[in-house]
Amino acid sequence: MTETSTAPVLIAVDDASGIGVLTLNRPRQRNPLSVDTMREVISGLRALAADSRVIVIRADGPVFSAGHDLREMIGRTLEEERAIFDVCNEMMRTVQSIPQPVIASVQGPAVAAGCQLVASCDLAVAATDAVFGTPGVRIGLFCSTPMVAVSRAVGRKRALQMLLTGDTIDAETAADWGLVNFVVPPEELEIRTADLAAKIVSASSATVRIGKEAFYRQIDLPQDEAYDAMAETMAANAMICDAQEGMSAFVEKRSPVWQGR
Amino acid sequence: MTETSTAPVLIAVDDASGIGVLTLNRPRQRNPLSVDTMREVISGLRALAADSRVIVIRADGPVFSAGHDLREMIGRTLEEERAIFDVCNEMMRTVQSIPQPVIASVQGPAVAAGCQLVASCDLAVAATDAVFGTPGVRIGLFCSTPMVAVSRAVGRKRALQMLLTGDTIDAETAADWGLVNFVVPPEELEIRTADLAAKIVSASSATVRIGKEAFYRQIDLPQDEAYDAMAETMAANAMICDAQEGMSAFVEKRSPVWQGR
Amino acid sequence: MTETSTAPVLIAVDDASGIGVLTLNRPRQRNPLSVDTMREVISGLRALAADSRVIVIRADGPVFSAGHDLREMIGRTLEEERAIFDVCNEMMRTVQSIPQPVIASVQGPAVAAGCQLVASCDLAVAATDAVFGTPGVRIGLFCSTPMVAVSRAVGRKRALQMLLTGDTIDAETAADWGLVNFVVPPEELEIRTADLAAKIVSASSATVRIGKEAFYRQIDLPQDEAYDAMAETMAANAMICDAQEGMSAFVEKRSPVWQGR
Repeated sequence: MTETSTAPVLIAVDDASGIGVLTLNRPRQRNPLSVDTMREVISGLRALAADSRVIVIRADGPVFSAGHDLREMIGRTLEEERAIFDVCNEMMRTVQSIPQPVIASVQGPAVAAGCQLVASCDLAVAATDAVFGTPGVRIGLFCSTPMVAVSRAVGRKRALQMLLTGDTIDAETAADWGLVNFVVPPEELEIRTADLAAKIVSASSATVRIGKEAFYRQIDLPQDEAYDAMAETMAANAMICDAQEGMSAFVEKRSPVWQGR
Repeated sequence: MTETSTAPVLIAVDDASGIGVLTLNRPRQRNPLSVDTMREVISGLRALAADSRVIVIRADGPVFSAGHDLREMIGRTLEEERAIFDVCNEMMRTVQSIPQPVIASVQGPAVAAGCQLVASCDLAVAATDAVFGTPGVRIGLFCSTPMVAVSRAVGRKRALQMLLTGDTIDAETAADWGLVNFVVPPEELEIRTADLAAKIVSASSATVRIGKEAFYRQIDLPQDEAYDAMAETMAANAMICDAQEGMSAFVEKRSPVWQGR
Repeated sequence: MTETSTAPVLIAVDDASGIGVLTLNRPRQRNPLSVDTMREVISGLRALAADSRVIVIRADGPVFSAGHDLREMIGRTLEEERAIFDVCNEMMRTVQSIPQPVIASVQGPAVAAGCQLVASCDLAVAATDAVFGTPGVRIGLFCSTPMVAVSRAVGRKRALQMLLTGDTIDAETAADWGLVNFVVPPEELEIRTADLAAKIVSASSATVRIGKEAFYRQIDLPQDEAYDAMAETMAANAMICDAQEGMSAFVEKRSPVWQGR
């Protein structure tokens, strides 16, 4: 516990690039998602959302995150257990409800709630040494909240395989199954994540904001309802300054100048 | 605009094969899905549905479709924008609501609403030079209606990657992600598409009609409801002439003779 | 019909391992899923559920299952057809509603309802000679109930390809599409299936039971509702003896001793 004198979560915004970075900062404890840490992730994401155009979630040390802090879950009441998972749910929802895209940048193990966090991010870049798993079944606590995000990312049979065996999958398999977007050498993880972030920053922030909100609004709807909702969203999007500028610039074969609205 | 003297959409039925073909016919403008073109696609599909047993959507020229005609979206009212996306939605729904299977046959770029059209077809054959993308984010207009079809085809992380970066994916990646079924050399695109169509034509048209309608009816239902609905559908299917003939022929080891009912 | 003197379904429990095995036992008829056989599968699964911690569904002979017994579907009334698909639905639901994980162990063809059975199992191990298909379209009877399970396993375009063409896919493709988990040499099918089963048996049976039930309860819910439900499930899971033991053992770096509650 030598690291508890510093914050479990660090946040920083690079004003020049518009990229906000949230760092899990308990490397020696394998970056556990304790209640305090999850609360700091939530407040950190909200703070970054005020100043950033895209947010990276990364971790210090060889482990992205080992998941919940088990010490907090032993010998507790049902109400106390509920409180832990309520905070965890709120963290995962915050990742998707803030307007800025969130990119997970992952090295080493990302397991249980750590795997769920990666699955919940909009995009994910993994180092070749990253591994992903939902091993709760091995310690008597099935990864039931992680499976919400993981089963929606990788599908039924593959999610059940991870959940019922507790085995991890490597980075290439995670990419093959759609859990992460890119696999890169560990030494390129930071730059490749930054390049991806920069590409998104170069777009209209107003448009990106509309798009991310719309994505999660439509994804669980029946297709017909999704189409109705998205037609209205896209028509309204077409009316904003940046869309009119972007379309005009494209037609005129010039670069657009975004106003962010 | 030298091509506007001819129709933006051509339709033809090969009576011998039962295959209807709808061709996007504005190659020099990159086959834009203008409101007029989309209306012609809708009416073309409906006309083909009267005479064909399977329908191919293809495009003339090096580009399958560049998506909406941006010129129609600049300087319009909200009501005018809504009208565009309403027609677009209707086109995508028509592809899935007509009884005949619809096969996209794709070369070159299929982007934005062009990518959505491929995602909406029942099946898709892509030439090796095909590329797919939802690049609206780059011009300020997020591909919110395309994402309805694309996210249901390729899953969350991959859809968000296409939507947030605007980058295209190549044909092999599209096949790997489930956006298209087959990747073939460009010179084989027509014949391979025709072979696939012919295979479907050789089945009972009544059975294919039942199956396509049932597929889209069940796909968004909770599994339990889907099973209830499909048990009734399949029991009714078993009563039609072609099912009785098909099962009898199979048991008797002879070829079935379809009546189409 | 030389085999009808023996039961169409055999069940056995290995008390030492806790693994129950259900065997389709009509190899010469290609293991048809007749109404009688489906009823025996249902009662067999329920019987095994009383005594086993994981269940394997396997088949004798070169064919896993050719699907429904067509002879039962020719010349019947609508009510009789309905009864067949009701029993079939009940069989598929039983696979997922019993508390024990069910592993399909597949060699040779698994088609129509046979393919659906594999898709419905929690996990599946396939021999390299296994093939999967929904060929009903070729005999006039669209695989509408199989498509419920198959489309949820492999996605829209791939399901429609299987359904509309009737073509089979090989084991590697089935693994690539998420229909099965592992592909193994035929001579290793039994041992690899047993190894997978043993791994699940080594976990807390109470935890596995909670997890399987929760998986199917959440999979069709909108994500927000799924999170609410799973937070409660996971909090309750954390209170059981085996979770407290498993977490304590993990923290104390010792092996857990499960009580199954």
